[in-house]
Amino acid sequence: MLPQLRVLSLETISKIGQEVLLQGWVNARRNLGKIVFLDLRDRSGVVQVVAGPRDLDAASVDRLKDVRPEWVVAIRGVVQERGEKQKNPELPTGRVEVIAKELAILASAEPLPLDLEDEKIGLDIHLDFLPITLRSPKWQAVFKIQAEIAESFRAYLRSDGFTEFAAPKIVGSSTEGGANVFRLKYFDREAFLAQSPQFYKQIMVGIFERVFTVGNVYRAEEHATTRHLNEYTSLDLEMGFIHDHTDIMATEIGWLRHLLNHLEQTVPAELQQWQWQRPLLPEVIPALKLREAQQLIKEDTGVDHTAEPDLEPHEERWLSEYAKAKFQSDFLFITHYPTAKRPMYTYPDEADPDYTKSFDLLFRGVEITTGGQRINNYEQLVGNIKKWGLNPDNFKFYLESFRYGMPPEGGLAVGLERLTARLLGIDNVKLATLFPRDLNRIDLQLSPPEYKQ
Amino acid sequence: MLPQLRVLSLETISKIGQEVLLQGWVNARRNLGKIVFLDLRDRSGVVQVVAGPRDLDAASVDRLKDVRPEWVVAIRGVVQERGEKQKNPELPTGRVEVIAKELAILASAEPLPLDLEDEKIGLDIHLDFLPITLRSPKWQAVFKIQAEIAESFRAYLRSDGFTEFAAPKIVGSSTEGGANVFRLKYFDREAFLAQSPQFYKQIMVGIFERVFTVGNVYRAEEHATTRHLNEYTSLDLEMGFIHDHTDIMATEIGWLRHLLNHLEQTVPAELQQWQWQRPLLPEVIPALKLREAQQLIKEDTGVDHTAEPDLEPHEERWLSEYAKAKFQSDFLFITHYPTAKRPMYTYPDEADPDYTKSFDLLFRGVEITTGGQRINNYEQLVGNIKKWGLNPDNFKFYLESFRYGMPPEGGLAVGLERLTARLLGIDNVKLATLFPRDLNRIDLQLSPPEYKQ
Repeated sequence: MLPQLRVLSLETISKIGQEVLLQGWVNARRNLGKIVFLDLRDRSGVVQVVAGPRDLDAASVDRLKDVRPEWVVAIRGVVQERGEKQKNPELPTGRVEVIAKELAILASAEPLPLDLEDEKIGLDIHLDFLPITLRSPKWQAVFKIQAEIAESFRAYLRSDGFTEFAAPKIVGSSTEGGANVFRLKYFDREAFLAQSPQFYKQIMVGIFERVFTVGNVYRAEEHATTRHLNEYTSLDLEMGFIHDHTDIMATEIGWLRHLLNHLEQTVPAELQQWQWQRPLLPEVIPALKLREAQQLIKEDTGVDHTAEPDLEPHEERWLSEYAKAKFQSDFLFITHYPTAKRPMYTYPDEADPDYTKSFDLLFRGVEITTGGQRINNYEQLVGNIKKWGLNPDNFKFYLESFRYGMPPEGGLAVGLERLTARLLGIDNVKLATLFPRDLNRIDLQLSPPEYKQ
Repeated sequence: MLPQLRVLSLETISKIGQEVLLQGWVNARRNLGKIVFLDLRDRSGVVQVVAGPRDLDAASVDRLKDVRPEWVVAIRGVVQERGEKQKNPELPTGRVEVIAKELAILASAEPLPLDLEDEKIGLDIHLDFLPITLRSPKWQAVFKIQAEIAESFRAYLRSDGFTEFAAPKIVGSSTEGGANVFRLKYFDREAFLAQSPQFYKQIMVGIFERVFTVGNVYRAEEHATTRHLNEYTSLDLEMGFIHDHTDIMATEIGWLRHLLNHLEQTVPAELQQWQWQRPLLPEVIPALKLREAQQLIKEDTGVDHTAEPDLEPHEERWLSEYAKAKFQSDFLFITHYPTAKRPMYTYPDEADPDYTKSFDLLFRGVEITTGGQRINNYEQLVGNIKKWGLNPDNFKFYLESFRYGMPPEGGLAVGLERLTARLLGIDNVKLATLFPRDLNRIDLQLSPPEYKQ
């Protein structure tokens, strides 16, 4: 084949009458007598190729016989406008087709073990075959959108004076989290995988005032649910010189507004794959104290959970529906969780010290953010570490920040995969995770049926 | 203090005659009779504050007595132009000073255990006190620049059709790397920390053609050097539909040009902190085959290493000097490493199959990139896995990509911390790593002198 610059499938619509070189995967093959229609897929989408003996050279006709779905091919051909009846308004390239003149095979493919368009193949099969199931436009769309969520987080915060940093994942102390931490052999001692970049982002407030980091975090959760992952991506921010936790909440609202606009501008076609419903995001997201929220639920359902330290999943769903009906908001802040049940660094409300200046953000029935103001006074923080039954010596490095001057500060963490799932209406967070790890799976099922003795 | 919008120190230069509210850390305190000069540091820089009883209220005068370096304060005052003799052209805010009218203390600080300006405090002390040593403008600059390197990588690749993805760090097989891999207790079995996102980025070429990921990678290196880290940040890209490894090299050249311009535009002051010398980057970076490079060294030094599989550190330095003198380039590609010494997925050169279409990039004496074309043919890859003495069953998930159609592809990985260090002339890569982990350190020294019995 003559050397020639590659053209992407989507670019053909502006090249009618021109010769182009396409490269991509065969998305589908349809035979019509001697004519073969190939849907060719590349990173820009799909275009229809018409291949037949009239225009193809003999060697290409021969090669064409073998070509099946997922074969990787290069096609030289001429773009032409389709006849009026053949135009497909559903497809961005539906006005054109490419008449193949030459075909080369870049890679063959074995027959697929499943139908990529089949929506009922089951979670485990879908995940076992991710290297190919992700090739379908619908699943490609999820992770295109996810990439833009992360980009929006960074772009918004950079424009607001935040600096990015890389947090370490190997940590020396498991003292923040207790049981659900992964243990690591670190040379001749033990280390742990970080459950969050919490301590590091607080330290970084002492350096840059406003920081963010996007990275993996680890939870050795023993239970398999549709909401939990053992490794996920956390969007973390932390900022100094705040008045209280409401400054953090205001930053989140500003970002969410940026996010929705950014997605609609950068990945509109991918959103349409998932019947995008733009979330209702009012100027100010409504906020309820935990006890107020529990009181509302009690009045509605008669079940009294007003002494519980947290909401149950069905209560989060109830509250989301309440916020949508009452405030026309798909988002709802819950604030003032009990001091005794939040981490030792959480800032107690001076007006009611049994409750904290902390918050969760509920979105379409699920908590997607935890945040709040942190204790920045050194003595108060050391006192709390002791009160929580922990040893300040294990926090020596972290405590340096507070010992040598830390402004009032706070921050939040957003689970990237949960947010992706809720934005697109995906029920199981594992389907919004590129390569999910759980109790039973690292890439492949750890004990798949066929391996069992 | 009256509620008022905060002004950053750098913004004072456009607010002469106006009242402002500043918030930040006391960078230095100088007493001059009853007048106290405070250098106030915030995320935009430093401004001089003049505090004395003539303008301050009595309570503020009282509070001022305690204020020492690293205390966090809020100061209300009026910006005025300095007298001609007092102007400091070295400081961006050197034309102005702020006459304090009110001072509030946001956080106190204990006396510093070291002098932040002291350049000779030693590596271990510097690292043990990172939460405060990083506060000095010189070290802040390193990590501001590092954040912009990562941003430039993403921005350039996004504009070139690449999609970002998040690679998992917990992996099920240590088969890529052998000895220097960290082992993890994953529920009732063993797992490993990924040494690179290699397999995942190749899988993702099957989904998006062009992908990149920025994240931590892990090497259980037993030796402590100025070049090695146990956890570092890898800038990874991978792209399909290439002709050969030179397409990857061309992409790297394009990014490096973007990088240098991006840094000079976004962080010029931070570069000046390190006496920035813009690297010499010709239109095309010179490239030598490994054997050619070894021959040049042999001719110069008389030492014959022309049968060695890799370069030694002093040879990398020799070659960098050679490239600078001969090609006016701070960068030099070395290509065609021996097939037997590269990973099983490396593409052999058809013209000389004992050598691969792989490359390293040397920059100022150190290798900062490894890359190349990969084997994309399924049978060839399975054959190589067996030839390397490995079991294809352990690569089942990875191999799905190749079994079901993978275009010719390749990629590269850049060590973010090494690149940062070489750009700024920092000798030890640990100093260009935010929170370095090594054999003897996770935040604090694991066996510091004072803890020894």
